[in-house]
Amino acid sequence: MIHLSDIGEDALIRRLIRLVPLDAAPAAGPGDDCAVIDPGPGHSSLLLLKTDALVEHIHFLPDAAPRSVGWKACARVVSDFAAMGGHPQHFLVTLALPPQTPVAWAEDLYRGIGDCLQRFGGTLAGGETSSVPQHSAAVISIAATGSVLRHHLTLRSTARPGHALLVTGSLGGSRLAKHLAFTPRLKETDWLVSNYKPAAMMDLSDGLARDLPRLALASGCGFVVERGALPLTAGCTVEQALGDGEDFEMLLAMEDGRVAGLLAAWGEAFPELTLTRIGCLVEAGAGEALDGGWEHFSKDLAK
Amino acid sequence: MIHLSDIGEDALIRRLIRLVPLDAAPAAGPGDDCAVIDPGPGHSSLLLLKTDALVEHIHFLPDAAPRSVGWKACARVVSDFAAMGGHPQHFLVTLALPPQTPVAWAEDLYRGIGDCLQRFGGTLAGGETSSVPQHSAAVISIAATGSVLRHHLTLRSTARPGHALLVTGSLGGSRLAKHLAFTPRLKETDWLVSNYKPAAMMDLSDGLARDLPRLALASGCGFVVERGALPLTAGCTVEQALGDGEDFEMLLAMEDGRVAGLLAAWGEAFPELTLTRIGCLVEAGAGEALDGGWEHFSKDLAK
Repeated sequence: MIHLSDIGEDALIRRLIRLVPLDAAPAAGPGDDCAVIDPGPGHSSLLLLKTDALVEHIHFLPDAAPRSVGWKACARVVSDFAAMGGHPQHFLVTLALPPQTPVAWAEDLYRGIGDCLQRFGGTLAGGETSSVPQHSAAVISIAATGSVLRHHLTLRSTARPGHALLVTGSLGGSRLAKHLAFTPRLKETDWLVSNYKPAAMMDLSDGLARDLPRLALASGCGFVVERGALPLTAGCTVEQALGDGEDFEMLLAMEDGRVAGLLAAWGEAFPELTLTRIGCLVEAGAGEALDGGWEHFSKDLAK
Repeated sequence: MIHLSDIGEDALIRRLIRLVPLDAAPAAGPGDDCAVIDPGPGHSSLLLLKTDALVEHIHFLPDAAPRSVGWKACARVVSDFAAMGGHPQHFLVTLALPPQTPVAWAEDLYRGIGDCLQRFGGTLAGGETSSVPQHSAAVISIAATGSVLRHHLTLRSTARPGHALLVTGSLGGSRLAKHLAFTPRLKETDWLVSNYKPAAMMDLSDGLARDLPRLALASGCGFVVERGALPLTAGCTVEQALGDGEDFEMLLAMEDGRVAGLLAAWGEAFPELTLTRIGCLVEAGAGEALDGGWEHFSKDLAK
């Protein structure tokens, strides 16, 4: 019998979505950072939908500060809206918690969600609480709607061979420090889609080694990464920058001729946050492969 | 220290939603069957949002057929849209499963979701899979958007003293038989909002003893239930009808003078499904109290 630990998350999702009715003509289907619903030609904005879950022991440890866990649960979703060029709107929060959980823990978790909504402009529309059996892992699942102006929508699938690849900030080491306190790059993506709209964009949640191949595959390209150019978090190796995951920085593709102008304007707009050219897209079949990054259901987890 | 097992789910939600930004002027806020978003006066339809989770050992047993579990997970959400007078649209499915789960189990679960979407007209817009630690309970969380014509919207909070209370179908015994294979009453609520729009409506998920007080409280009323009039599932007692939960029948309030006409027309439209008058709403503070029904985080669960 085949178990989830025998196949990757991407392969699992490909198998599952064949089994249910899908939108006949989706603006972007399963596989991008968010689902995109087109409400019709009379509307200037598209509807974005996203769901994301945090699991105790997997995405946070039992002794993590609950306010930080709440921030992270919410900020991951905000980051996905940012990656589409959009904004967060209405949030639904599902808590599945053991009955022995302190009420104060749940309240601090909600305060963290509130911190994030306050800062990035979403509101709570509803939610649900459920018990899980004692000693089962806590699960926090957040679903949300967002909105993106039609001409700001930025997909994974629209890059072409020859486009430059760039990343915001630095990569690696997130699990030691940043993963509970990262800042979604919403301000920066807002600026990008208004001033230098990327040819394609996604946020880096599972590590460059896993996420870049997804963007390249969606766009029908190969890729080359200049390892020496990778912006490393202080104290991190290239392997960590490729594989640690949970950077929540933006990976974007840009027409080569626009990169110099972008970098100059970026430096003016965001002097505190680097934007670094790390490689380029090439024809499909050319380029390299990357190993590493975060994989759910991997055999390591199954031990 | 206070734990979740010391306070009820409703009290917990009341404490939590104070801690986050809410919609300034929601069409219906946390507390109804769905959240309702008004896209503005130019739109004839309102946006409905719902999230709902199934937890292994709580909502289904490990040996339940996964196709039935998938049906149930999806049908609970469809039932909530029906309770607002609306329709399901775009679904997001989150699976948090142990790595040793057979791939075939996840596929059958999705087939059950597909069965339900096919029958009631929703589509899968996206989703996510995550691992949980080995031996942790599986969690299936479904979030969805729905749509309701502005003049069909049916809330919990709009009933008045003197209104009759009615329920579809029969109550009790769901956990022995029906809870994995129930039919959301979408066809019936469609007919109701077009022909005899209820003054208020909700679906019965936690048992009449728990859900009726919620509708009455939301409407600022008390209530009286005629126990002898309750439509009992064959072999069930009045206590089971009040407390078992997971009936997924509709509870509705109707102006007293319209009840005779409603019952006659209902019998023509739905000869196979009963609609039964079970009591009435009265002034707040009058009426009775009810004990029982399903409570998450109860002390029994915490043992």
